[in-house]
Amino acid sequence: MKGWMGRILIIDLTHSAVTTEPLDPGIAQQFLGGRGLGARLLWDLVGPEVDPLSPENVLIIATGPMTATGFQTSNRFSVSTKSPLSGTVLDANSGGYWGMRFKRAGYDALIIKGRAPKPAYIEITEEGVSLHDATHLWGKRVEETSQALGQDNNKRNVLCIGPAGENLVRFAAIMNDTTRAAARGGPGAVMGSKNLKAIVVEGDLRVEMDDKERFRFVQYEATKMLKANPITSQAFPEFGTAVMMNIINAIGALPTRNFQQTHFDQADAISGEAITETILVKNAACWACPIGCTRVSKTDLGEGEGPEYETAWAFGAACGVDDLMAITNANFLCNDLGLDTISAGSTIACAMELTERGLLTSDLRFGRADLFTQTLEDIALRRGLGDELAEGSYRLAEKHGAPELSMTVKKLEMPAYDPRGMQGQGLLYATSNRGGCHMRGNMLGLEVLGLPKLIDRLQVQGKASFVTLHQNSAAILDSLVACKFVNIAVAEEYLARALTSLTGISYPTGELIRAGERIWNLERLYNLREGFSRADDTLPPRLLSEPATGASAGWVSHLEPMLAEYYRGRGWDENGVPKLAKLEELKLAELAVEVLHG
Amino acid sequence: MKGWMGRILIIDLTHSAVTTEPLDPGIAQQFLGGRGLGARLLWDLVGPEVDPLSPENVLIIATGPMTATGFQTSNRFSVSTKSPLSGTVLDANSGGYWGMRFKRAGYDALIIKGRAPKPAYIEITEEGVSLHDATHLWGKRVEETSQALGQDNNKRNVLCIGPAGENLVRFAAIMNDTTRAAARGGPGAVMGSKNLKAIVVEGDLRVEMDDKERFRFVQYEATKMLKANPITSQAFPEFGTAVMMNIINAIGALPTRNFQQTHFDQADAISGEAITETILVKNAACWACPIGCTRVSKTDLGEGEGPEYETAWAFGAACGVDDLMAITNANFLCNDLGLDTISAGSTIACAMELTERGLLTSDLRFGRADLFTQTLEDIALRRGLGDELAEGSYRLAEKHGAPELSMTVKKLEMPAYDPRGMQGQGLLYATSNRGGCHMRGNMLGLEVLGLPKLIDRLQVQGKASFVTLHQNSAAILDSLVACKFVNIAVAEEYLARALTSLTGISYPTGELIRAGERIWNLERLYNLREGFSRADDTLPPRLLSEPATGASAGWVSHLEPMLAEYYRGRGWDENGVPKLAKLEELKLAELAVEVLHG
Repeated sequence: MKGWMGRILIIDLTHSAVTTEPLDPGIAQQFLGGRGLGARLLWDLVGPEVDPLSPENVLIIATGPMTATGFQTSNRFSVSTKSPLSGTVLDANSGGYWGMRFKRAGYDALIIKGRAPKPAYIEITEEGVSLHDATHLWGKRVEETSQALGQDNNKRNVLCIGPAGENLVRFAAIMNDTTRAAARGGPGAVMGSKNLKAIVVEGDLRVEMDDKERFRFVQYEATKMLKANPITSQAFPEFGTAVMMNIINAIGALPTRNFQQTHFDQADAISGEAITETILVKNAACWACPIGCTRVSKTDLGEGEGPEYETAWAFGAACGVDDLMAITNANFLCNDLGLDTISAGSTIACAMELTERGLLTSDLRFGRADLFTQTLEDIALRRGLGDELAEGSYRLAEKHGAPELSMTVKKLEMPAYDPRGMQGQGLLYATSNRGGCHMRGNMLGLEVLGLPKLIDRLQVQGKASFVTLHQNSAAILDSLVACKFVNIAVAEEYLARALTSLTGISYPTGELIRAGERIWNLERLYNLREGFSRADDTLPPRLLSEPATGASAGWVSHLEPMLAEYYRGRGWDENGVPKLAKLEELKLAELAVEVLHG
Repeated sequence: MKGWMGRILIIDLTHSAVTTEPLDPGIAQQFLGGRGLGARLLWDLVGPEVDPLSPENVLIIATGPMTATGFQTSNRFSVSTKSPLSGTVLDANSGGYWGMRFKRAGYDALIIKGRAPKPAYIEITEEGVSLHDATHLWGKRVEETSQALGQDNNKRNVLCIGPAGENLVRFAAIMNDTTRAAARGGPGAVMGSKNLKAIVVEGDLRVEMDDKERFRFVQYEATKMLKANPITSQAFPEFGTAVMMNIINAIGALPTRNFQQTHFDQADAISGEAITETILVKNAACWACPIGCTRVSKTDLGEGEGPEYETAWAFGAACGVDDLMAITNANFLCNDLGLDTISAGSTIACAMELTERGLLTSDLRFGRADLFTQTLEDIALRRGLGDELAEGSYRLAEKHGAPELSMTVKKLEMPAYDPRGMQGQGLLYATSNRGGCHMRGNMLGLEVLGLPKLIDRLQVQGKASFVTLHQNSAAILDSLVACKFVNIAVAEEYLARALTSLTGISYPTGELIRAGERIWNLERLYNLREGFSRADDTLPPRLLSEPATGASAGWVSHLEPMLAEYYRGRGWDENGVPKLAKLEELKLAELAVEVLHG
């Protein structure tokens, strides 16, 4: 199996049992790797009866055929599990070095089952796998844990959870290489529920390629595209992802104060330009990435990575905060505690609105950046109000009688693009399989940047097919695995050619995109099996009824007509259930029988 | 008015009257130039009572703000008139040098009215305009005419008609720089009906720019994109547009023998690869074009330009011919007689099918390449059966009792992409304002090449919004004026920035695309005013009922559901009439009152 390593590692923590299984070639071909492979494995392993934080849930870590090949951004890995926050199928992925290193230890995927009797960590090398006691690490933060386990990008990479994961915070991240995060939907809590503190990997095995010369040629062509593209060659390297702050604010789509407004007067103070001018030390990059969007920043508390656009927004505009230093420190702290910055910031923003509306008794009010440190530590350690916040904004708001003030889809906090100013983005959130998410097919390129084409951000009719296309496309990137940013400049056509030359299996572009559609539909089936329905494909009522401000003034999200169009275009029935013909076309019909007719 | 020259030249041939008018800045801003400006002027000048071949029709030649600026492909001009073939609003555009030279003589557009009492030609220089007797040129072919009038790309460019235009062949081209053609829909016949043989231009005026440095920077960025893109940097320069032959044949979308099949076993013999291997002498390029897709080829009859993909198909697969030499000679002859190669080849193909089915008595049968020369000359001179063919395939087939065998939309012959194998392409043809055309927003990139993204070519649901987007986009390119091929690599975003720096008028990308939509809707209104209706937005019955062959076997065009979706997405009612709200949004409501309520 060229491209893949051909082996899955299975560790049962309850019984300290380590086994390997061959990777099924048919599954690999159909679901690629990463997110797709994870979803396919999860389908068999974790049914609707399983509580996400029980030993019966599994944690799947998967690389893809592109991982560790040296292709641009081929450093990433994907984590799949049932989400403790949303209850949906979950995948989250992360960059850095760990994913590359894990594959070079000789595996495509790792399935972690059960629960260790006491805190443990796993060590994986080319020579074998060992389980170790981690009692001495339990309670330690991410940086200390990583150092203790010998984190070194040149040979040994550490993936771990911080206190947040240990304490089952529903939006706890899995961290790797100290500062990279697979965060959304709380996979860190699943890891914590398994008493698993860390996974250390070493390895230098090479990925076998079918036609290395051809593969390198595609890579050479991709380099040209990345260098020519203004976002990948200029905007991201120079200003990081937070370059979007002023842009999104200018169109009135920057969710502000828990989505009460859609523009933030102080946006410029928390923008990528401001980061570059004030706190930036240097750029950094993941392994094999020519873009280098990572910011290394310095605050009064020290040096660290960040903030990304989403983080600068979550602790910034979402909380009514314009103090870039405080935001960046909150970012550093989230990394060290192992928290998803989007859900953390957004849950605090929700608490702020609950407080201001008299529904919650706390000091949290919009603008109170001075409370970030204490609040984040309280969340990670589940102390006081932090214990409530650790459940995420939906459960918090529901407990205080106002679930409609949680800015979530399927209980996952939405990111920094307001659906009222980007209609397609709203449809994207509503239909995202892991809940409110911008990485399942962002409409930023199409609705704002004009990459590859500009479509009217406020148009409703005809929007659905663009969303579908980009969702399928995102599923490919997450399954190869490659970074979404490479796809800003490099079309699927190149990825298909690279994959073909890598694996020796013919992947015409259409087949590759079909794989993305297959993965999307399988995830949909998973959620349907869990009991999700059309009613869950929605947005917080605020977005459907309270008009936006700023340059999108007067607009609400017109979700319903888009949703109907979306279901039709996807080949789903009016309840959002894939029709049999579609599933047959995608070779999913056999799997789906129980969902459709069970 | 930076970017524009600010003057329109008006020549009344009936009265030998030459006047100029200032270009209305509001109209220029809203309709840009080229096709958009042409449509706007035509709206006022030529109503439904006017016969296309009468002196009351006008011929408008327009450049755009980008023309002659040195921006990539800024050499083109557009011709607008009421089509003698389709009866619709018509625009056709052409490259080379003439457009650049005309603008540098000091004008944005030329409106030609009336009919000269005897054959005439026009000479336009920076110093002034003169009308000359062309009696000595009447009857002469294009090359001889061009030479006689001093064609010289370095200083003096000649636009003219050949015998086909003089004899009012309904698909006669206007030729410029000897071998370039504004051909589709028969503008050459309109020119012929005015007794106008040629327009000679000289000029070296420069286009004033608002921010030249910024403009050149956008141009520099566009260069990077063109060099990185595989189509513009490799496929087109190396193989010309006919590189599509094998690709389109492989997916079963190459219309063969008058669209009776959708694959042609001998496609490779008439492909771009075959051209490069056998008859190619060298590449050539239009002014300011870094792509250089033009083929200079050599046959037994001499050297000339071509064949393009469409021409190689029209005289090749469409006629069941695999003789590249014969095809290329037919191409050269069409250029010299002034004929649209697509309509010429397709009309002959129609005659071949009529003959084979016993509906027409002639020697024309599929494969009879030996009859091309005689037939084309007969058409241009309206001799014998040629006189019938000169009316186009629709009128020919109708006369012989089988209009359904004319492969046309709105009487314009469709090009070389079969709607059964490219569903979106079918919607595009059916809704194209000038009739069956691939240059009003080709789906080739999306449905076949994966540029910028690949969508399923056989999907029906959700297809309409892609067609709309590309139609609007094409209208921009035709109005700036720039070549569609630049848009393969360079997004509208760049064009908007270039236009802004050129004119000093702020054109956000969305506004630019809105201009494209405005132009599209104005053309639609024009056709509605002419009496066209939803019933005309259709395809030949063959495409809706006879299944394709080859890799698209079994497929027919599923036009109706796409059309309904398209109307909805465009903001048109179920009869295809733009709703008032849409027209108000596009600032067309005032113009449209007579159509909507007249």
